[in-house]
This record gives sequence, C-alpha cells and structure tokens, in this order.
Amino acid sequence: MKLNLKSVILILSLFLIASCANQIKKSDPLPSWNEGTAKSEIINFVNTVTKKDDPMFVEKEQRIATFDNDGTLWVEYPMYTQFIFAFDRIKKLAPKHLEWKTNQPFKAVLEGDMKTVGASGMKGVMEIIMATHSGMTADEFEKTVSNWLATNKQSKFKRLYTECVYQPQLELLAYLRSNGFKTFIVSGGGIQFMRPMTEKVYGIPPEQVVGSSVVTEFQIKDGKTALIRMPKIDFINDKAGKPVGIYEHIGRRPILAFGNSDADMQMIQYTKAGDGLRLGLFVHHTDADREYAYDRKSHVGKLDKVLDIAADNGWIIVDMKKDWKMIFPKKSK
Amino acid sequence: MKLNLKSVILILSLFLIASCANQIKKSDPLPSWNEGTAKSEIINFVNTVTKKDDPMFVEKEQRIATFDNDGTLWVEYPMYTQFIFAFDRIKKLAPKHLEWKTNQPFKAVLEGDMKTVGASGMKGVMEIIMATHSGMTADEFEKTVSNWLATNKQSKFKRLYTECVYQPQLELLAYLRSNGFKTFIVSGGGIQFMRPMTEKVYGIPPEQVVGSSVVTEFQIKDGKTALIRMPKIDFINDKAGKPVGIYEHIGRRPILAFGNSDADMQMIQYTKAGDGLRLGLFVHHTDADREYAYDRKSHVGKLDKVLDIAADNGWIIVDMKKDWKMIFPKKSK
Repeated sequence: MKLNLKSVILILSLFLIASCANQIKKSDPLPSWNEGTAKSEIINFVNTVTKKDDPMFVEKEQRIATFDNDGTLWVEYPMYTQFIFAFDRIKKLAPKHLEWKTNQPFKAVLEGDMKTVGASGMKGVMEIIMATHSGMTADEFEKTVSNWLATNKQSKFKRLYTECVYQPQLELLAYLRSNGFKTFIVSGGGIQFMRPMTEKVYGIPPEQVVGSSVVTEFQIKDGKTALIRMPKIDFINDKAGKPVGIYEHIGRRPILAFGNSDADMQMIQYTKAGDGLRLGLFVHHTDADREYAYDRKSHVGKLDKVLDIAADNGWIIVDMKKDWKMIFPKKSK
Repeated sequence: MKLNLKSVILILSLFLIASCANQIKKSDPLPSWNEGTAKSEIINFVNTVTKKDDPMFVEKEQRIATFDNDGTLWVEYPMYTQFIFAFDRIKKLAPKHLEWKTNQPFKAVLEGDMKTVGASGMKGVMEIIMATHSGMTADEFEKTVSNWLATNKQSKFKRLYTECVYQPQLELLAYLRSNGFKTFIVSGGGIQFMRPMTEKVYGIPPEQVVGSSVVTEFQIKDGKTALIRMPKIDFINDKAGKPVGIYEHIGRRPILAFGNSDADMQMIQYTKAGDGLRLGLFVHHTDADREYAYDRKSHVGKLDKVLDIAADNGWIIVDMKKDWKMIFPKKSK
C-alpha cells in the first residue's frame, strides 16, 4: 500500500469525523427523554456509580436494575394485556366448555360484560387465569402466547402489543446495559406470559424475567418429557411479593428500580433501603393524547399513595407528557 | 520514541513468544482432565455447538449449562455440607432452646447420635432445617452462612468447604463460559445457602443459582425493610423438581447438564429431550484415596438407576479416578 501525505490527511479526517459523530451520539444516551429532573437524575446516577474513583462507585456485578412491565415498559391501559389474552382464550376455548355459557365469570366474558367480570373480584379473575393458563404443557403455552402476541393489536394504537412499548424505556435499558448494568423485569404479570417476547422486544433474556407463576409438574410419558402447568397459583409477584421475587430469583438488591403504580412501591422501598446510592422511579401516565392519563382512581396501575410520599422519599416521578419526547418506537414496517 | 531494526525484531519476537504460549494454553482447555471419552465428548460437543456453519450450531443465548452442586462441584460425602452447617447451628443455638435437650431429633444432634437423626427421616431433617434456616432476616442468614463457610473445615481434607471443590469442574465451567455458555447451578441445596459463595468460588453469580427455598416475607419495621425467612418449605429443587426449577428460574432448556446422582436424572432427561445436540454427564465417585468411593448404596448422592441406564441413554459417566488428573485446586496459601 502506498501512502502519500494527502491520503494520510484524508484518512485522519475520516477518523476525526467518525469520532465526532460518535461523540455526538454518546453525548445523549437518552434522545427520547426531554431535558429535566428525571433525565438528569438518571444520567447523574449512572455516571456516579460507574466512576471508579467515586466514593459511590458500584462494582459491575452489583449493578442490578429492575423494571416493572405493565405500564412501565409497555401499555397496560385500559386493561392488562395478559387479561385481554385470557378473555380471548376463553372465547376460543368456549366450544369445548359448554358450561361456560351459564357459569360466571365465564358467561360474562363470553358476553363481553366487563362489569360483571370486574364484580367477580379476585376469585373470578383467578378462575379465568387458571382456565386459560394451566392444563397444558409449557411448550404449548409458549406457542399459544407467541401466536397471540404476533397477531393481536392494541385497540387504541392499532399496533401489536409488543410495539406498544415505550421508546424512552428501551433507550434507558440499553443505556444501563452499556454501562455494565444487568437489567431484569420484575412484574406482577405471568413469568411465562412475558418470556416469549422479552428478549426480542427489550433485550432481556428469559432468565432475567421475574413474575407470577402457576405450580408446574415434570412428567415423562412414553419417553417424552413434559412440564405440565397446573391449575394452582405458585407465587404472586406483586406488591410485597416483588422484593421476595427479587430475593428468590436474583439474590441481590437492585440499585435502580422502575415502576408505575402503588404495587411497585415495595420494590422501590427495598431498592432504596440498600447502602450507597440508589435510584427509584415511577412512570406517571399523564398523556391522554399520546397514550393515556390515569393515576389515583384507576382500576389498573393505580398510582395514589406513591404520589403522596414520593417527594419525601426521594422517589422520582417521571411525567410521561413532560419527560418523554416520544412514546412508542417508530414502526419498523 | 526511537526504533531501530534490533528493537523492532525484539518486540516482534516477544509478540511471537506470547502468542505461542497462548496457543499452548489454548490447546488444552481442560488440563486437569485425563484424555478419554468424557474429555473428548465434552470438547467435541463444545466445538460443534459453537461452530457457526455446523448444522448443530447453537446460538450463544441458548447455550445454557446447568450443574448440580453437592457431589458435582464440591464434596458431599460423608454428609451434605448444608446438613453439617445445620447440626453446628443446632449446637450453637441450643442454650436458647432448652427443650432440645429432650426433644428429638434435636437431642440426637446435640449428642452426636447420627443414627437417631437418620432414623427421624425426612420429617426430622425438615425440623432441623427449619430450626436453623428460618426465623431470621435474609441478611442475618447470609452473614451466618458466610461466617460458617469461612471458618469450618471438611473433616478428611482439613480444608474449607469452599476449597473442597473439584478443579476439573472449575476448568469446565471456565471453558464453557469462554465459549459463550451461561453457567447455572441447579441444586437440591438451599438457594440462599449457596449464593454467598458461588460467585467467588465458581464464578457463578447469585442470579444464576437455582435451589430449594423457604417461604420468605417482606416487612417494613420502623422504616427499615427486611426479608424474613419463614419456617415453611417453599420449593424442593430436587429430582423432578429440577426441571421445574429450571423452567421457573431460567425459562430455557439447558443444552448441557451435569449431575452425580439419581436425583439429577430428571434434569438430564429434560436436557437431553430437547432438539439438536445435548450433553448429559454424571460424576461417578470412584476414588477412595483422593476423595471418596460411593454409588449404589450410598446414603448421600446415591447413583444407582443412572448407572443401569446411562449407556442406553447416551449419558456420560465421568469416572473420578480415571478421568480426573487432580481433584482439588492447589491451596492458594
């Protein structure tokens, strides 16, 4: 290869341009976040815990970040996606369950009478969940969920549910990971309902998903192995269950936790009670135009007590309308 | 900096030497394994699943390897380390439990009467486990375990239990990880009994440890958060519980699993039943001189049925005496 002065200058210039472009990109790791307290608190936190000579430095393996899913990473309004899935399954399975035509809460689901479904309370909801989430193998359930997510769209946005995820949060997850954090989902949702999509959508592998579960049994039939999902709740990973789920699955206390409702409060309290610097955040759904606006009186994702005590506890309330430049990723197709 | 021809040659030679040394090191990733079927099966397996253009290639994120702990990664004979810990705790706590002087199985533990302890069966063992593994916070339990492991030695080898780990397995774990595998422990032992040491000893972080557990509750007292370990079994991660534990914690089927007893059989069956290339291995304790020799009739780590059906199922039996060049790591001090 022959190099003259001209080509050397040309090559150096190209390097400089590439390096500058990189610098500009680096200078805003959260482009969909508007400038403000939330964004600057996050960036300050990450800068501090990753700075080797800072007294608040945190070793890489201790950089655990936990995120709620419904309402924190993807849309939960007007109904949790998993419930919509369960109602759809009831309709699909109804021909094999003629008794549902007369038995509540199934009758109400089949008639689209959400008021009666709601009135059936936790007991009714559990019956619906059991009828649709158990009595099959793990593989069958995974396929059913994957197919459903690939074909059903959210009512307001006419997008797949997996496209109703928050762009600013995707950026935050990537930003944390690029700074050595290990990112986890810690959700009240079904652990096996989330796993088919978390890796592709959030970059979070199944082994970093914590959620609610049903009792499962291992069986061998005709030399074939199967995990059978039983009609019995194993663990509810919600409210005070979240720190327990973290203890069981992760075995370390997070240094950053992000939720959006009173049901995430205990996770944030557990996170913030650790030594050193900790960050606790909540999404506040304030954007009726671009997404939804709901909080203290909502039937899903109720955010009430948290709003009263956040300031005293140093919890950061992320105002969707004010803090987020965009809500969803641009459509890929 | 001034460079003449001599120094350039010198620098190049140093590079060459370093590169050769590296090559020699690379050529045997398992130096404590003797040449033989087990070693070559492992290396062939790893070479195949990591070779991009091989029909049996496995994507990095699917390279999950699970290891039993007792008898597979560290010594379990003549008694599981966790039981020795529990007996020691009974002795330590006895002054606060005068009733143990007369109540079985505690009386037998205090008198060192292991025959009576054994005769108390699963019920007796559970009482001992509950008395020593619950009724404290998660933090207190972790400290107790860490202190115990740092100060108590294995009876035959006069080493800390964490030094009675198998050097060939440490090499295998490192070899798998250097080939993109994620390594997990899947043990019948207590999940929180193992976690204080797995990262330092095996390079396996707490979030990659699956084990048995007690019910835990989250409480807030005087503004302080605590996870309280309750006297109730949550999950037994043994035998048919192992595939269930893998499903709950990992959410993917391993492609390699390593055990040492009939209680690991279901984990190996579950692993091998997946598509594509899979490897299932068992340590056979055949070395009475360097470690212990036990199998079909042993009260711990019973290896019986597996020995009968291993060949038909393509499971690899690793003969400790024949396959392992050394048993334990050289003492660091």
